[in-house]
Amino acid sequence: MGNTFGKIFRLTTFGESHGKAIGGIIDGCPAGLDIDFENIQKQLDRRKPGQSKITTQRKESDTVEFLSGIFEGVTTGTPIGFTIKNEDAKSKDYSHLKDTFRPSHADFTYQAKYGIRDYRGGGRSSARETANWVVAGAIAQQILNKIGVKITAYVSVVGSVKMNKCHKDMDLSQVDANVVRCPDTEIANKMISEIQKTQKEGATIGGEISAIATGVPAGWGEPVFDKLHADLGKEMLSINAVHGFKYGFGGVDIATSKGSEVNDVLLDESGKTKTNFSGGIQGGISNGNDIYCEVAFKPVATLMQKQNSIDADGNTVEIKGKGRHDACVVPRAVPIVESMMALTLADHYLRSKTNKI
Amino acid sequence: MGNTFGKIFRLTTFGESHGKAIGGIIDGCPAGLDIDFENIQKQLDRRKPGQSKITTQRKESDTVEFLSGIFEGVTTGTPIGFTIKNEDAKSKDYSHLKDTFRPSHADFTYQAKYGIRDYRGGGRSSARETANWVVAGAIAQQILNKIGVKITAYVSVVGSVKMNKCHKDMDLSQVDANVVRCPDTEIANKMISEIQKTQKEGATIGGEISAIATGVPAGWGEPVFDKLHADLGKEMLSINAVHGFKYGFGGVDIATSKGSEVNDVLLDESGKTKTNFSGGIQGGISNGNDIYCEVAFKPVATLMQKQNSIDADGNTVEIKGKGRHDACVVPRAVPIVESMMALTLADHYLRSKTNKI
Amino acid sequence: MGNTFGKIFRLTTFGESHGKAIGGIIDGCPAGLDIDFENIQKQLDRRKPGQSKITTQRKESDTVEFLSGIFEGVTTGTPIGFTIKNEDAKSKDYSHLKDTFRPSHADFTYQAKYGIRDYRGGGRSSARETANWVVAGAIAQQILNKIGVKITAYVSVVGSVKMNKCHKDMDLSQVDANVVRCPDTEIANKMISEIQKTQKEGATIGGEISAIATGVPAGWGEPVFDKLHADLGKEMLSINAVHGFKYGFGGVDIATSKGSEVNDVLLDESGKTKTNFSGGIQGGISNGNDIYCEVAFKPVATLMQKQNSIDADGNTVEIKGKGRHDACVVPRAVPIVESMMALTLADHYLRSKTNKI
Amino acid sequence: MGNTFGKIFRLTTFGESHGKAIGGIIDGCPAGLDIDFENIQKQLDRRKPGQSKITTQRKESDTVEFLSGIFEGVTTGTPIGFTIKNEDAKSKDYSHLKDTFRPSHADFTYQAKYGIRDYRGGGRSSARETANWVVAGAIAQQILNKIGVKITAYVSVVGSVKMNKCHKDMDLSQVDANVVRCPDTEIANKMISEIQKTQKEGATIGGEISAIATGVPAGWGEPVFDKLHADLGKEMLSINAVHGFKYGFGGVDIATSKGSEVNDVLLDESGKTKTNFSGGIQGGISNGNDIYCEVAFKPVATLMQKQNSIDADGNTVEIKGKGRHDACVVPRAVPIVESMMALTLADHYLRSKTNKI
Repeated sequence: MGNTFGKIFRLTTFGESHGKAIGGIIDGCPAGLDIDFENIQKQLDRRKPGQSKITTQRKESDTVEFLSGIFEGVTTGTPIGFTIKNEDAKSKDYSHLKDTFRPSHADFTYQAKYGIRDYRGGGRSSARETANWVVAGAIAQQILNKIGVKITAYVSVVGSVKMNKCHKDMDLSQVDANVVRCPDTEIANKMISEIQKTQKEGATIGGEISAIATGVPAGWGEPVFDKLHADLGKEMLSINAVHGFKYGFGGVDIATSKGSEVNDVLLDESGKTKTNFSGGIQGGISNGNDIYCEVAFKPVATLMQKQNSIDADGNTVEIKGKGRHDACVVPRAVPIVESMMALTLADHYLRSKTNKI
Repeated sequence: MGNTFGKIFRLTTFGESHGKAIGGIIDGCPAGLDIDFENIQKQLDRRKPGQSKITTQRKESDTVEFLSGIFEGVTTGTPIGFTIKNEDAKSKDYSHLKDTFRPSHADFTYQAKYGIRDYRGGGRSSARETANWVVAGAIAQQILNKIGVKITAYVSVVGSVKMNKCHKDMDLSQVDANVVRCPDTEIANKMISEIQKTQKEGATIGGEISAIATGVPAGWGEPVFDKLHADLGKEMLSINAVHGFKYGFGGVDIATSKGSEVNDVLLDESGKTKTNFSGGIQGGISNGNDIYCEVAFKPVATLMQKQNSIDADGNTVEIKGKGRHDACVVPRAVPIVESMMALTLADHYLRSKTNKI
Repeated sequence: MGNTFGKIFRLTTFGESHGKAIGGIIDGCPAGLDIDFENIQKQLDRRKPGQSKITTQRKESDTVEFLSGIFEGVTTGTPIGFTIKNEDAKSKDYSHLKDTFRPSHADFTYQAKYGIRDYRGGGRSSARETANWVVAGAIAQQILNKIGVKITAYVSVVGSVKMNKCHKDMDLSQVDANVVRCPDTEIANKMISEIQKTQKEGATIGGEISAIATGVPAGWGEPVFDKLHADLGKEMLSINAVHGFKYGFGGVDIATSKGSEVNDVLLDESGKTKTNFSGGIQGGISNGNDIYCEVAFKPVATLMQKQNSIDADGNTVEIKGKGRHDACVVPRAVPIVESMMALTLADHYLRSKTNKI
Repeated sequence: MGNTFGKIFRLTTFGESHGKAIGGIIDGCPAGLDIDFENIQKQLDRRKPGQSKITTQRKESDTVEFLSGIFEGVTTGTPIGFTIKNEDAKSKDYSHLKDTFRPSHADFTYQAKYGIRDYRGGGRSSARETANWVVAGAIAQQILNKIGVKITAYVSVVGSVKMNKCHKDMDLSQVDANVVRCPDTEIANKMISEIQKTQKEGATIGGEISAIATGVPAGWGEPVFDKLHADLGKEMLSINAVHGFKYGFGGVDIATSKGSEVNDVLLDESGKTKTNFSGGIQGGISNGNDIYCEVAFKPVATLMQKQNSIDADGNTVEIKGKGRHDACVVPRAVPIVESMMALTLADHYLRSKTNKI
């Protein structure tokens, strides 16, 4: 029972990679929001497989159907139910995994936890689930946009290719100008080469995504256990293949920095600071500056190479990925990171409404 | 309203740095646990100020008083209420902060959020709160010990001094053999020098703590939103001054690794793997191997040097720390990190009891 | 954001009376349960409109479609998503209500709360929602059946016709032997006459349902705020038209009873008591005897008679129900009451698994 | 783990009857509230034992000590921790109960649930816990008062003495004019006689309390599972000895009423209705009229008469109450009922702040 996210703006989801459909319920969405359906679909399209030469070729139209909570295009305050059909679920691709546990996958752990699993395509552990998050995240972004909050994420690391520029020194409107979603064209080209090289080897590599929210007012975050960065971190760590999270300190080596070098001096009573090493959060509460964090992805565990593993009886078996997978998931994860940031911020925005008498 | 932690084993806390007392309520602690009170006090003593030459000299006996939920030394299943008095709360040290917002502190954000704050010693944002966590964490560890789970944390980075050994290659029983809590004596001495040098400058530095849990069976963690590492990450990020979290991949540069290099090959049906790059967690569920994570601390923001800031009216003021502070909080944070790991694991242990019919 | 029920066995629902579909997500259902789909449909059929001469004639097949969480007929521990299509949603029946607030309906309150509402058929406030509860409740009952808990509800009052027998003195297997769902044939016939008379007048009447759970072991319920009867009461009060709840004291006038007359004397260490005035619950925890409660329904507010009301501008208007409604909802509410009892008990069963070390 | 109440305004409590202290934490109290401490103590005094000739003579000063969350008399938005010492805890009175389960008490059920219990004075199941609720309820009332909501409760039934007047036909300022807390002097005198007669017999009787909230605006309540009356009902049912709850329908026999007779006709766009059979709630949401409910108490189970019961080994034993108990708890329960109503309404007030964009 861990399939609900948020305290007031709450997303509960369901769905396996190769079941009939995935979907979710958004409870606590404020009434009166004019839904921009095109924008939701656009975010889904940025996430979906088969969108470019560097992604898996699984074909899904990823069309979301809304079943409730929206009347004549406007949210009614009642729960928003939605589903996304699984259209191209080639279950036969996975039948060989019925009795096999793939290395560094969740096959073994789901089996150990529940004593049963839907082994097709990873079942519930598949990243297909993240399409649900993008639907809800797009709605959360629409709420935030109305109060001037804008969220952008981009790829900052692919394998050994790392961009060292601060987000302030780039044109963030260029994130989608290339297939790898890095706003610096030169670095982007290097990243694309890195991915294509990896693809050819049947291998996989990791990377990092940076996410920024501008326009967040001071006062969001609920210490001591629901600090804004703690909730952000938890939600980012929920994304498949994410293994690390940090916030603030863009462009400095924090290990060798002294407090005096990374303290953010306040400039005026709006909370504006000279520097923003704190990533827009102090003591778990937004301080009015840009929220900034980095999310680290490990290489996907499914390989197109032979590997040893064991079957349910403990016998050693040799396996090789047969499905359709990305050599590097990071470019497709950009809208997912944006969605998780939007869900977290929308929830904390609503929570902040009750702070004062 | 963010002062509760956990779904079944739940900790709710209260308290300001200079109020009458801090304290908490543990709800959901199973009945029948023989409490080892000495062990709780020992963990508190490892956290408390004034314990060695490299820590702040604030004097607190940090004696916990239990008020309920324990009868004749045994937990009764009812909520465990406890308090810790604030004995050495020198409020006058902080009166100069009434109208001043310290750089990179939570003074401004609490004021912005609530329109009022207890400015003495940082009020609710003070790390004094973590004493509450250590009380509850010690009890959580006692529950876990009964089923063979053991938690150890140690300092792995102080400023520029970094230990590169894997936790398997060290004697973890030696963590408390030195004041910096690094089990490698040679590295420990370098860390101590680094801290003392920083102390003399009135400066502060950051560091990292590594945490390990052995004996965790396969099956803990509740995807998709309460994955074991996501909850671990959230709780670690709740600790004052923590700005980053990652799990797994001890000793490798994950950025330049390929999936094939960091996949953990299963050896038998117990879940044992040849390597443990996954840090004991697959798909958000423990896989029976050691849980392993790293927690990054930024340098404390309170400096014994002059800094510019603003007051409540927006005027520039010059401030200098007058309280008693650590140059590097990392050594004292070791029991806090252990506590947060214990709280997270105890909660997931209890949650896992309902997974199967 | 009040559309989730339960702490471990959790139901989240969505849907309006005349939207595309209603549905829900069950999170926390233990893995390994063989689902009896026929039984679920049977419970839905007992609730659905048009089933007999004394119910509304709206036609809905009320076929539930499961989308996830069940693999080859067995629950997998992952969330169970389901939908029920709205097939016979005659929206035109309700267009006259767009600008009118019906007396004693939720039209006005939803509008006041959200500033917008789906006015067709009452939207979210329609009792159509209860079909979702019956789906989840049937699954909850299947879990409970496996440990020997059996739930039965029956109609004990219709308007002025009241049955005074104790549930122990009746054959509860006869609940469905008549359309009014009262196991005493003589009283049942009087109830049917009462309803038919009311139907002819275009009027509505209320009634009561008694619910019994046998086989509940001692130890379920979580004081002090989640007492078993408090959660039962809350869930029963969630049912449309319910205005009262009590537990225990079957067949006595509690107002004039003394403590000595209604104390339940313990007979043996299993917890069996001589009498069961406590309704199987002491101090909010089950005591091993039958759980027993009564749920009171007010007359449905939709009348086939003319009534005065106001429109959105505050003008007085004359309205008359045009939809298809029951003169007495109580017979169809029997499976709903059973479902709410099952959901509450299943959740507390799972919660009780963590009470002891 | 059921010791937390509320979603935004949250109360978590601890404490046994004869432990060192009871207490609680209020999380989510908005910042900026000037606390009226005298008012809190006044409510505690209305609840405490020994206040009049018709109550138990246990002596407790019931002085609350606030430990956090209030700075210079004003709430800071951080959690409010408080304790109330147990001063007159005569533990020896209860030593005879160590191995005995009193009839219709929670002795047996706590033992069955947890395998251990603090048997002194009922431990956690004692009504002493309700002092915690009164502290938090008084603060909740102070929040509500600021927006014009006023809560009053009074005794409407004691044993066979029943007041049939509607609350609108009485002077509610007279509730405390007599020791039984019934605003009608004539009925009050009959109630007092009834209690004194019962006291002499060493017996106990039950009763009812009516509660009214005026000034609640339309729009509070969160369907479908957190309807305003469902949450009210749950909290009232949490009170020791409460076995029934209903809302609305003051002064009518709802069983024999028709929908046409109890429909509340809307008078204007403020939501004002001609009658208020709905008790101020439609579809689970307040409609702007007075909130009205009734809470039924069973006779207290502790008798000063001899009764049979069993001990922990299943042997029959004869017991007789030796502690200090009320013959009728209803008069002292008036501030408790007010508190539970206030806690429920304050939480829903805060929740309603997020309903619209």
